[in-house]
Amino acid sequence: MDRLIEKIKKTKCPVCAGLDTSIDYIPGLKLAGDPLDYAAKAIRDYNFELIDVLCDIVPAVKVQIAYYEMYGTAGMQTFLDTIRYAKKKGLFVITDAKRGDIGATAKAYSAAHIGKTQVLEQTACAFPADMVTVNAYLGTDGVKPFLEDMKTGDKGIFVLVKTSNPSSGELQDLVSNGKRIYEHMADLCEQWGKPFIGKYGYSAVGAVVGATYPGQMGSLRAEHKNMFFLVPGYGAQGGTAKDIVPAFDAKGLGGIVNNSRGIIAAHQREAYAGMKPKHAAKEAALLMKEDILNAFDDAGIRL
Amino acid sequence: MDRLIEKIKKTKCPVCAGLDTSIDYIPGLKLAGDPLDYAAKAIRDYNFELIDVLCDIVPAVKVQIAYYEMYGTAGMQTFLDTIRYAKKKGLFVITDAKRGDIGATAKAYSAAHIGKTQVLEQTACAFPADMVTVNAYLGTDGVKPFLEDMKTGDKGIFVLVKTSNPSSGELQDLVSNGKRIYEHMADLCEQWGKPFIGKYGYSAVGAVVGATYPGQMGSLRAEHKNMFFLVPGYGAQGGTAKDIVPAFDAKGLGGIVNNSRGIIAAHQREAYAGMKPKHAAKEAALLMKEDILNAFDDAGIRL
Repeated sequence: MDRLIEKIKKTKCPVCAGLDTSIDYIPGLKLAGDPLDYAAKAIRDYNFELIDVLCDIVPAVKVQIAYYEMYGTAGMQTFLDTIRYAKKKGLFVITDAKRGDIGATAKAYSAAHIGKTQVLEQTACAFPADMVTVNAYLGTDGVKPFLEDMKTGDKGIFVLVKTSNPSSGELQDLVSNGKRIYEHMADLCEQWGKPFIGKYGYSAVGAVVGATYPGQMGSLRAEHKNMFFLVPGYGAQGGTAKDIVPAFDAKGLGGIVNNSRGIIAAHQREAYAGMKPKHAAKEAALLMKEDILNAFDDAGIRL
Repeated sequence: MDRLIEKIKKTKCPVCAGLDTSIDYIPGLKLAGDPLDYAAKAIRDYNFELIDVLCDIVPAVKVQIAYYEMYGTAGMQTFLDTIRYAKKKGLFVITDAKRGDIGATAKAYSAAHIGKTQVLEQTACAFPADMVTVNAYLGTDGVKPFLEDMKTGDKGIFVLVKTSNPSSGELQDLVSNGKRIYEHMADLCEQWGKPFIGKYGYSAVGAVVGATYPGQMGSLRAEHKNMFFLVPGYGAQGGTAKDIVPAFDAKGLGGIVNNSRGIIAAHQREAYAGMKPKHAAKEAALLMKEDILNAFDDAGIRL
């Protein structure tokens, strides 16, 4: 987590650009050849353009694997190319995969995203991100293999705790033994994360906590001082800069706020009409940074 | 779900072979070239051999995507080739992906596995399974897009309800409003599944319920008459034929029992020493079928 925090401090920008790249965001396309290959290639080019302009502004990208899986093997190649290019450009890469399974299968997922795949006497990295999001509904068995890889690999995970969507409460807000399920999940995260606390006081076992529930975010922050938050839900889903302030400590650390559509499809919004996607993305990212730093100012937080 | 049930009735075999193919299962390999490409090719050949012998015995395969993801894009190509070959051989294909996300992202996962990916004016199928497993920790928002695709596509999902692993209880067994979390999840599944009940009385929204918790499986069966169970945990994880009986109704319907290692790596067990993997797999699958049908007999169930 130190590596991510250092990038945030350097850019003074606790913002993560979400590369949930839908083909619908890319202007001027004309289908030729195999549709999945065509889409994958177009998305690759689009991502590279965005990365070129964003790499000086934001510290990190979150690459949502679903938007690549849907284009088949060609999509997965674009996913890999995107990870590699973002890293080459100095960006911290979070794969948003929400993977979760048990035993040997969880180990396979961990190998795929933050570890290494053993092939007889050699190893190789399949989709080498810095961190990956994990769904821990299956409990500790499903998380352990990731923790094992974290011991040796300078990597981390974000566990889904309280998600940003309207129906997240159906299960996550149920109360058991005086605590909500997402609070139980946070307690587990804290336990899992204890061996991985870095020099800024934050563990490499982070939590996904939606911007759309600022009250619950604030309680989680108060309860779990060592837990770093990946915060989705700003922008399109309704979360504001004020809503995300509770994620942060007095030094402006403790969280990174994701924005996907609001950045990578900014050119489709009226405010950016006529601009090229990469220019609109740059403007939108800068505006979001300013928006958050202003909210920090109002709250007496200085990054 | 009718399609799966008809295949089960025809084979008289409520068994699903799990293609969680680890390279460690394949004898006689000698690494050459890129390790991920090499592994992917070896697994493809191995799967095809297994499918050739299993397609006359079992009605379905469950392909665990993690074991392909870990070999990168080459692994994903093998995943696709495996799905296609299994379908060509008449097998029902369940992708075990435990995907779960929200809104447009869940829609992308659904498109990837049971729906269609839209690319401008065309559509294509990325990894066309018959059913996919879903992790619904995020609630209804994450499931709806799958249900939408099910309305048009003759496909289905299995939602994780009570998983087979030792720590599944950490969250799933917590009690809220007098019910355990997995029971709340089952209630949600039942709601989601209502529009998809087929002629045998089972919904295409099924549930994953581990063989390792037969008591809980029995209560779920009693509570949810229309819910079809995908049952992991038989064999290596400790579940026996007797343990899985509670999943079934008096006609031997209502569930399918998965076995991965016990079938596809049977040749590594002492009982099958010296046999080729495909022959050991065939024997193991037939023995498992017999084991379950015997347990059915003992319970007065006739498939």
